[in-house]
Amino acid sequence: MSEKHLQTGDVLPQYSGKLRLFAMRFCPYAERSVLVLNAKNLQYDLVFINLDHKPEWLFNFSPKGTVPALEYEQGKAIFDSNIINVYLDEKYPDVPLQSSDPLRRAQDKLVVENFSAAQSAYYTAAFNAPALQPSMVENYHKGLNGLQKELETRGTKYLNGNEPGLVDYTIWPFLERFEALPLLGKSEFAIDKTKYEILTTYIEAMKNVPAVRAYRLAPETHAKFTESRAKGDPDYNMLDSSDVCCMRPRKKKE
Amino acid sequence: MSEKHLQTGDVLPQYSGKLRLFAMRFCPYAERSVLVLNAKNLQYDLVFINLDHKPEWLFNFSPKGTVPALEYEQGKAIFDSNIINVYLDEKYPDVPLQSSDPLRRAQDKLVVENFSAAQSAYYTAAFNAPALQPSMVENYHKGLNGLQKELETRGTKYLNGNEPGLVDYTIWPFLERFEALPLLGKSEFAIDKTKYEILTTYIEAMKNVPAVRAYRLAPETHAKFTESRAKGDPDYNMLDSSDVCCMRPRKKKE
Repeated sequence: MSEKHLQTGDVLPQYSGKLRLFAMRFCPYAERSVLVLNAKNLQYDLVFINLDHKPEWLFNFSPKGTVPALEYEQGKAIFDSNIINVYLDEKYPDVPLQSSDPLRRAQDKLVVENFSAAQSAYYTAAFNAPALQPSMVENYHKGLNGLQKELETRGTKYLNGNEPGLVDYTIWPFLERFEALPLLGKSEFAIDKTKYEILTTYIEAMKNVPAVRAYRLAPETHAKFTESRAKGDPDYNMLDSSDVCCMRPRKKKE
Repeated sequence: MSEKHLQTGDVLPQYSGKLRLFAMRFCPYAERSVLVLNAKNLQYDLVFINLDHKPEWLFNFSPKGTVPALEYEQGKAIFDSNIINVYLDEKYPDVPLQSSDPLRRAQDKLVVENFSAAQSAYYTAAFNAPALQPSMVENYHKGLNGLQKELETRGTKYLNGNEPGLVDYTIWPFLERFEALPLLGKSEFAIDKTKYEILTTYIEAMKNVPAVRAYRLAPETHAKFTESRAKGDPDYNMLDSSDVCCMRPRKKKE
């Protein structure tokens, strides 16, 4: 699969009849939907978008030009990772990713909501470091602690139970990226194993979930992209191998 | 019912066994949940909260001290209007307020999402007028136009269909408050009948929906509260009649 990000002027690839997700390779929100598509064993095409030079046709699928957007029928789309994911889970019920109990579904959403301050702290640390406040670092650890307590209370391998569910796939993309922060000199964001024993076990388990393993990137890769974006020149295509052969650059045609 | 807002030091009223909603009389988010409780004919108690001097016990129900919060069992609560409302609709399915079609449910959420910029513009105009930008007024009318187009496309009396549903009760509290803006000198926020014919018809229909009629306040009342809050001294108890008898002030005990 090409990891190339399409940009202004690029042509919309032909519709294959499968579900099609518009994403950006390093976007945690887009990853949420990729993980759900994977976990539900759905067939889909992925179109990566250069968010600094958006192709004109993106706005036909996502009115604000955000990713992810899901083309569920040719020319028809919905956007917002949570809206897309609940839709996918309800439309394709074969591998259910949510509890059948309304209260538990509400509580799962609250876990995500309670984690949002940690996500904001991550964004500031990664992309706007000069604005970082000690209260944000505190919120980050409050978020991690809350998550760990939730795992402890639930007493299951994943938040969803013995198998990961929507709540796990919604939070995971951020945990994946948190591990990049110490590599960027933000040691106060490190997830210390002794302090976060239960959480660390959970993180390691999530890394091995097939839906995650198929898409996740190493902390070093996230760190590299983050650096490029923080400098104002995001290297969207750093993973693209469509112009190389056997990992060696193709000879340029002369 | 007392419209008095409880504050720091006030005692938590005794639990009656009914669902209990923590709210603020003028809060649009809390109103969303009140409307859903009404529409589903659920029995509930309402506890109004002074958001500037929060009772200590509020945080047992709502960790961030926000309203609405729903005590669904004694001492156990969930918060966030959307989370509460979906929970209520799924837990008490007798009067369903959402479509049975997953795609339609996703589209309803997008209607709400697309309307959010209009809500933000309202908040700035009402409570932080000096920060108001022309682009916000534009977003406000974009939101109204989008809503009108959606009503036109759907061709039903309400967004939900021939009966109002969750999507209507989610958006309504803001439409109710928008009508207060021209009374506060913000004539650029007026909803002109000739420009918004379909939307105006919808607004008038919503005013007469029983769940709404039982709780909605006149634009003049919203304007009065808004003025008090914009001045930094919100008159939470302006509707409280627990200290008056037959609309005349009770004689104070001497």
